[in-house]
Amino acid sequence: MTVRIGVIGTGMIGRDHTRRIEKVLTGGTIVALSDSVPEAATNLRDELAPAAVCYPTGEALVAAADVDAVLVCSTGSTHEAYVLAAIEAGKPCFCEKPLATTAEGARRIVEAEVAHGSRLVQVGFMRRYDAGYRMLKTVVDSGIGAPLMVHAAHRNPTVPEQYVTPMAIHDTLIHEIDVLRWLLDDDYVSAQVVFPKRSRHAHAKLADPQIVLLETEKGVRVDVEIFVNCRYGYDIQCQVVGEEGIASLPEPMAVALRQNASLSTPILTDWKDRFVDSYDVELQDFLMAAAAGTASGPSSWDGYVAAITSDACVEAQESQGAIVPITLPERPTLYR
Amino acid sequence: MTVRIGVIGTGMIGRDHTRRIEKVLTGGTIVALSDSVPEAATNLRDELAPAAVCYPTGEALVAAADVDAVLVCSTGSTHEAYVLAAIEAGKPCFCEKPLATTAEGARRIVEAEVAHGSRLVQVGFMRRYDAGYRMLKTVVDSGIGAPLMVHAAHRNPTVPEQYVTPMAIHDTLIHEIDVLRWLLDDDYVSAQVVFPKRSRHAHAKLADPQIVLLETEKGVRVDVEIFVNCRYGYDIQCQVVGEEGIASLPEPMAVALRQNASLSTPILTDWKDRFVDSYDVELQDFLMAAAAGTASGPSSWDGYVAAITSDACVEAQESQGAIVPITLPERPTLYR
Amino acid sequence: MTVRIGVIGTGMIGRDHTRRIEKVLTGGTIVALSDSVPEAATNLRDELAPAAVCYPTGEALVAAADVDAVLVCSTGSTHEAYVLAAIEAGKPCFCEKPLATTAEGARRIVEAEVAHGSRLVQVGFMRRYDAGYRMLKTVVDSGIGAPLMVHAAHRNPTVPEQYVTPMAIHDTLIHEIDVLRWLLDDDYVSAQVVFPKRSRHAHAKLADPQIVLLETEKGVRVDVEIFVNCRYGYDIQCQVVGEEGIASLPEPMAVALRQNASLSTPILTDWKDRFVDSYDVELQDFLMAAAAGTASGPSSWDGYVAAITSDACVEAQESQGAIVPITLPERPTLYR
Amino acid sequence: MTVRIGVIGTGMIGRDHTRRIEKVLTGGTIVALSDSVPEAATNLRDELAPAAVCYPTGEALVAAADVDAVLVCSTGSTHEAYVLAAIEAGKPCFCEKPLATTAEGARRIVEAEVAHGSRLVQVGFMRRYDAGYRMLKTVVDSGIGAPLMVHAAHRNPTVPEQYVTPMAIHDTLIHEIDVLRWLLDDDYVSAQVVFPKRSRHAHAKLADPQIVLLETEKGVRVDVEIFVNCRYGYDIQCQVVGEEGIASLPEPMAVALRQNASLSTPILTDWKDRFVDSYDVELQDFLMAAAAGTASGPSSWDGYVAAITSDACVEAQESQGAIVPITLPERPTLYR
Repeated sequence: MTVRIGVIGTGMIGRDHTRRIEKVLTGGTIVALSDSVPEAATNLRDELAPAAVCYPTGEALVAAADVDAVLVCSTGSTHEAYVLAAIEAGKPCFCEKPLATTAEGARRIVEAEVAHGSRLVQVGFMRRYDAGYRMLKTVVDSGIGAPLMVHAAHRNPTVPEQYVTPMAIHDTLIHEIDVLRWLLDDDYVSAQVVFPKRSRHAHAKLADPQIVLLETEKGVRVDVEIFVNCRYGYDIQCQVVGEEGIASLPEPMAVALRQNASLSTPILTDWKDRFVDSYDVELQDFLMAAAAGTASGPSSWDGYVAAITSDACVEAQESQGAIVPITLPERPTLYR
Repeated sequence: MTVRIGVIGTGMIGRDHTRRIEKVLTGGTIVALSDSVPEAATNLRDELAPAAVCYPTGEALVAAADVDAVLVCSTGSTHEAYVLAAIEAGKPCFCEKPLATTAEGARRIVEAEVAHGSRLVQVGFMRRYDAGYRMLKTVVDSGIGAPLMVHAAHRNPTVPEQYVTPMAIHDTLIHEIDVLRWLLDDDYVSAQVVFPKRSRHAHAKLADPQIVLLETEKGVRVDVEIFVNCRYGYDIQCQVVGEEGIASLPEPMAVALRQNASLSTPILTDWKDRFVDSYDVELQDFLMAAAAGTASGPSSWDGYVAAITSDACVEAQESQGAIVPITLPERPTLYR
Repeated sequence: MTVRIGVIGTGMIGRDHTRRIEKVLTGGTIVALSDSVPEAATNLRDELAPAAVCYPTGEALVAAADVDAVLVCSTGSTHEAYVLAAIEAGKPCFCEKPLATTAEGARRIVEAEVAHGSRLVQVGFMRRYDAGYRMLKTVVDSGIGAPLMVHAAHRNPTVPEQYVTPMAIHDTLIHEIDVLRWLLDDDYVSAQVVFPKRSRHAHAKLADPQIVLLETEKGVRVDVEIFVNCRYGYDIQCQVVGEEGIASLPEPMAVALRQNASLSTPILTDWKDRFVDSYDVELQDFLMAAAAGTASGPSSWDGYVAAITSDACVEAQESQGAIVPITLPERPTLYR
Repeated sequence: MTVRIGVIGTGMIGRDHTRRIEKVLTGGTIVALSDSVPEAATNLRDELAPAAVCYPTGEALVAAADVDAVLVCSTGSTHEAYVLAAIEAGKPCFCEKPLATTAEGARRIVEAEVAHGSRLVQVGFMRRYDAGYRMLKTVVDSGIGAPLMVHAAHRNPTVPEQYVTPMAIHDTLIHEIDVLRWLLDDDYVSAQVVFPKRSRHAHAKLADPQIVLLETEKGVRVDVEIFVNCRYGYDIQCQVVGEEGIASLPEPMAVALRQNASLSTPILTDWKDRFVDSYDVELQDFLMAAAAGTASGPSSWDGYVAAITSDACVEAQESQGAIVPITLPERPTLYR
């Protein structure tokens, strides 16, 4: 069965997912497009999805009879409404992060999905599909004893002027928040943020770097360095310290070069290259589940927990080193 | 356009390519199967390709009106006839290696394709599609000056009893023969084989390890260690020494583990895992070219040159250290 | 000139330094030994220093006319008195850590040395003499912009029953406390300790692992993982994150081995092997300065600051995550 | 006992060994110097060895009653005569390589030492004292099964105009010739040299790079790449392939740096830095043996075998790929 997909939002990520479904993956076809700028949708149709119908609104697209499943790739503030519409229509829905711009919004989605009674929503936390993280999880699950600590780093070469201090949580740490929960099969109970000396390369409205300290239910201590003006590259590090060994996230495959008095391997500089393969795996997973009328992978609940955790981290940023507790509601049976 | 594919030979690799086209890749569908053991074909149809028709012979499959392109995955001795049939029918044809069991056979295919006037054949040298070799080629082409030497190794943990000395060339070195020609954009002019002390793990009819020394037209010296009872893993090494630097084939991505007084990364032991991704890329490339009625990637000419080079290497094995010249016929315009 | 050395304390480290001066280094000779167990001294004399005179007390050894310089290698609680005696006698004095068992004691030594008017004391912080840390300091000083963060780890495979929670500071972290001050050319202003889940391999009176968070005057944030039951090895990690790059302490030189499906390098398991070369360099430095009647390297002031910082870290251990300020007295001119 | 040393030849290496004995090592003192340019000897005396007597000839130095042992650091063509004089005088003698400029000369030394009846000569093959090679030998001797192949490389960034083709053997390969014999506990039986395309950075009288193929008595196949205009650094590689694993010479310890889109470690560019520590160990070993009136480490026999092997390699250079046999005389009992 070929899943007939409608894409809401035809910007960079919507376009990329459209290309993916049409040119790379198997089992899906793009039959509907919608964008707040209508010609963006028609342009994308002409370029990559000639059979698609362009709809004036996301709601109309969701309602279209030949749309089996929906990709929400529009601007973040619109996600909640479209996802709720998809749930209402009983259609599988892949939603780019954030699931909603507030924890409250994410909660409403969780409640709607619980009321529906089965999973329909996959949130776009693509790192869970990265081959490196999957290798790491295999080792952590079987080979190093109970995890005790995680040392992680999320570094970008540079960020634009509009990237301000809280975005270090909402746009950057959000990936670690989700993937480390998944890696450890655990939840956070507190957060603290400490601010090192500010890099001279950070602009005025951004404290950079930051270190976020998280504690989990099982007692694991996580430290994540966020450094978005590190200059040298886009570099994701993750080391899990267990009772009987330490496992590290693989470095991306690279040619080793002996040249100019140096033995070197290149470090990526563009975040889009780092997890490029995981987008394919993520969306293929969605297509396979959608063909069966359901969803797998990161759930609404995961999106909701990420939102609650993010909010606590932002509060911790504003609290000058104080330890902020993180309290989660009870996990609905659907997500156990 | 979806390319309608017929698969001749439904053993391990035929089955795997069928799965690939049905479950992973885009743009192709399996419409025909054939095997010398008919129930093998019907079993595969039932399992993975319900819409396929099973043909009693490969020739009948090639001739079927709804077969747009052919995959030759049968036993090596049958390749030549099926490929010639596909060329005769004007249908794109992917042929697993070897293209033919003799250089003469490969020459006949080259001549048939030249007579046809455009490319129809892709040979299954999948290493050209491996991400690591592609990264290496990018660096070699742009960053280390003229190549002067290649140091390579092809190691297997063990081989079965029936693997005898010449198979080190035909089954093992054949991959380096092709991929290094492609990497260097060069051809071989001589071969020499030296035999180190035999490993105690090699059985009686196999000289293991061996070192093959190749010289190219441009003067590059290539040494390839072939060691198929190395015990420790399936390990492919390739280092290109250029006038201004040295580039090495990436190691496969792996988790680094600190445990038991050791910092280690795993080495693969099963050859099927090492280039698994490259089979996907290779066959996707075939599907895209076949949709346009042609073929790209490793050509009949490449298969023919590999056969000539292999024959010289086997002669070198039998010549106790003598340097055996390699002479190629003129390259037809079609392959320039 | 050959410096005539008296060694107080002939246990493991005193014996090792005696061997070093007699058998490895140049410019020194052992002329006097003393131990609270007299036969320990005579045994060492017989074995390694036949020309040495054995004294009944450390004080008598310090006072001996032919002793040019003193090595204090006795149990920690006796250090202060012997060092003060050496200063009183105007003799260069190498003191194994701790300089004194309390910050007050260390302060008294500083005051005595300041009153003397020139340096006489070197404290046995040998890491400053390690080739790896020296390479790291060269890079940090010149190549990565201003340091912003340090991520460090100090791991032992196991510790004996008598090693309890505060010893993670006094016996283990003490090395990082000193060497990071030196590496960064900076002082600490606060400390915080967080306790991850306890390893099942830690005995009842030891919280293991621990993470110590230090802040420096310049705003650098230091995190040190202390994990003394890590099982896998004695492993010292140190990474300095600067505004324009990240530099890591070299791993000890090791043979890479491809074997048993693994590419590995050994990790040391005995702390004595890790910095073995630095003891030679440290003591050679002492001999050279002592020949000129002075001392260089880690000073009394450094020992005093390390004691103040340790005390704050132990207070932080007891304070459940609170941030404990660290206040230093003014640095005397002698140590600027 | 302090060994009283006379140094013949006060150029770069003679000066360096004088400094070493006076300032670094224990158990030796320089009492005599001699140089063909007398003021070179007196200058060195004034600078580093004030107690030394300067002799007009090396022969006079060897004969001096207070000289216990001799270091021959003069120009290569004079080595044989000085070493023979030292043997004649029954004095331990450290001789920088070459032991003699011809195999015949080395043979005469061997015969003189055999006639003397005990070892007196150590040849300056310092790599046997390098910590990395020693680690490698430990692993090779115990952990990888029987050696089957060695892949080695000896690379310099550049060489001066006077370095011509045969010097690749006499000045460069000579180190591998000795250290690999020692590493494998084996001797060579044949040599072949192949010439890759010449680097554009090699001057007219130098074929660069070269690959030397050696076979040993035990059947090990050794390939050594000699590339003395490799531009990028002074780089020594050595990999031993055994029946059950592969061990590689450690890379020198280095800071890993993340900077400018690259993860890199520095490669040395000056050969003097690569084995700097091994000179200390080598000469300390000489001092200890000399104190007992004998010599250890690389022997006259090793120097003689290296000379015979070098001659065969130069013949192989001139023989266009022919395999040149290497035949050794019977090893005298003294060297077993």
